[in-house]
Amino acid sequence: MQAQLIALDWGTSSLRAYLLGPNGHVLDQRSLDRGIMQLSDTPRLVAGHTTANGFELALDEACGDWLDAQPTIPVIACGMVGSAQGWREVPYCPGPARAADVAAGMVTVRSVRGIDVHLVPGVLQHSALPNVMRGEETQIFGLLGSLPVDSRDQALLIGLPGSHSKWARVVEQRIEHFDTFMTGELFAAACAHTILGRTQQRGASFDVQAFERGVGVALSQEGSIGVLSTMFSARSLGLTGQLPAAEQADYLSGLMIGHELRALAEVLRSRSGQVELPPVVLIGNGALCQRYRKALALCAFPGVSLAEQATERGLWSLAVAAGLVAQPLQEV
Amino acid sequence: MQAQLIALDWGTSSLRAYLLGPNGHVLDQRSLDRGIMQLSDTPRLVAGHTTANGFELALDEACGDWLDAQPTIPVIACGMVGSAQGWREVPYCPGPARAADVAAGMVTVRSVRGIDVHLVPGVLQHSALPNVMRGEETQIFGLLGSLPVDSRDQALLIGLPGSHSKWARVVEQRIEHFDTFMTGELFAAACAHTILGRTQQRGASFDVQAFERGVGVALSQEGSIGVLSTMFSARSLGLTGQLPAAEQADYLSGLMIGHELRALAEVLRSRSGQVELPPVVLIGNGALCQRYRKALALCAFPGVSLAEQATERGLWSLAVAAGLVAQPLQEV
Repeated sequence: MQAQLIALDWGTSSLRAYLLGPNGHVLDQRSLDRGIMQLSDTPRLVAGHTTANGFELALDEACGDWLDAQPTIPVIACGMVGSAQGWREVPYCPGPARAADVAAGMVTVRSVRGIDVHLVPGVLQHSALPNVMRGEETQIFGLLGSLPVDSRDQALLIGLPGSHSKWARVVEQRIEHFDTFMTGELFAAACAHTILGRTQQRGASFDVQAFERGVGVALSQEGSIGVLSTMFSARSLGLTGQLPAAEQADYLSGLMIGHELRALAEVLRSRSGQVELPPVVLIGNGALCQRYRKALALCAFPGVSLAEQATERGLWSLAVAAGLVAQPLQEV
Repeated sequence: MQAQLIALDWGTSSLRAYLLGPNGHVLDQRSLDRGIMQLSDTPRLVAGHTTANGFELALDEACGDWLDAQPTIPVIACGMVGSAQGWREVPYCPGPARAADVAAGMVTVRSVRGIDVHLVPGVLQHSALPNVMRGEETQIFGLLGSLPVDSRDQALLIGLPGSHSKWARVVEQRIEHFDTFMTGELFAAACAHTILGRTQQRGASFDVQAFERGVGVALSQEGSIGVLSTMFSARSLGLTGQLPAAEQADYLSGLMIGHELRALAEVLRSRSGQVELPPVVLIGNGALCQRYRKALALCAFPGVSLAEQATERGLWSLAVAAGLVAQPLQEV
């Protein structure tokens, strides 16, 4: 099958490359530890040119053979590769934003091979406290593209757990509003660099009960004092023999995710004026999405589904929107 | 003037030693970087005995000359020296607790000099989420001892800012209830180990306006989404040119302290059933207390005063309560 597009998900720590055929079908894929903070600078020959540019080297490492085979195949990339620390900074697309708006904001960088790499912009929301995403917009459009045509225009709440989780409200295929929570990165910092980590004994397996206990505390009356205070209970329950060392990390994870979802539910209710919470679609790492799925259920969110292959589908959708590949016939 | 007591404030990172005369008057004082996590283990001769015990070595370093001059002077110590990682673990005194309760829970450790060092217990509150303090109880009793006799029985809200800030309600000289917030330690971890620190440019001087802006955000409508989310604004305001790098650390400090106080005010109102907040007395590091004082004022706390010399006064009060030194005549 003839490949149509090389699609790159190029973040801070990793580079995932997809070779896509007609209609976005995945023909081949690779994952390299070549995020924009992990690039090589050892000069090497790339397509007849010596270069020490880490982006060139990583692109060649990831898909030099694909490019050798089809030198004119279009290349698209999303994520931190378009940030100020990336290959070229791509100005944010202002929200609310549809796929066509984001596609129109793409910026190209010319590789030594003579091909253009099309970099996807992130989305900037000019709220009182501004919000930004870079990479998640592509996943959201990927999810939308995978929905049945007749349900694409309904309002959706999309959760993208990660170091910084994003919660996006999508209306009529437009990213209408989104919020960011630093829960994941703060959890990691608390475990590695505060007193809470000193008594943790981290095992390989996920302790569901400890996690759900933490969520329960965040949602309880005691949780109303806020996460800056309840986090200390991971220590004080340990000191008083009520939380074994092996359970402390998952308890803390549940506690912090619980506070995130408690706050999210409150602002959603306040914004909508309705008590009922919307169903959620989660996009992201499988294990982390399982944690959020359990916590969402405890937090009275009515239904949670998981999206698959959102990034590669989103890159395909944006390439279609930008005219880099042909629109498939069945999409009318 | 004849010394009556050696009083030690022995925490995680430092050891402060006070030589106290009649009525707790400070005759001499020293501060060493000999907290319980910074002890030496190089064997040395102490009062004719070779020892590699870091606590013995630090005690000798801090006040060997005082002990040589008065070998039978009583010695009292509060803080982490009585923790599981300390010289000897002192079981917590259960709260609510008065000075007499804490004094009755002291445990002694015999030094190679043949003297007993009296270790002050912390206080443990058996609430649904338990709470512990170790050292702050002594400061609270020191503050109470410095109040005019006729005002000692009034209800007080005492704030003890630090890596872990404590907020204690004291009624009739009894520590009735307290809460812990990990704000200080989490702020340090966020600055040193998350993406927020990468764009911070930290100067020597305190940027009051940036700090108060952060407090204002925490107290605003936007702040109701909680600290896990608003913290990201230190980055997103920076990315959009609305918060210079030099202001980001103090903005974040104000934001986090603001969230602490917003949550504190809510639980105080919920517990008391009254809208009016109580006046506050702050105990602790001067610069940090100034930050809290500014934030408390923005948060509608009606009056804030600062306590001086609370630790040495508290150690004196506990030594009096334990009968280690004579009760001064004027205290009837």
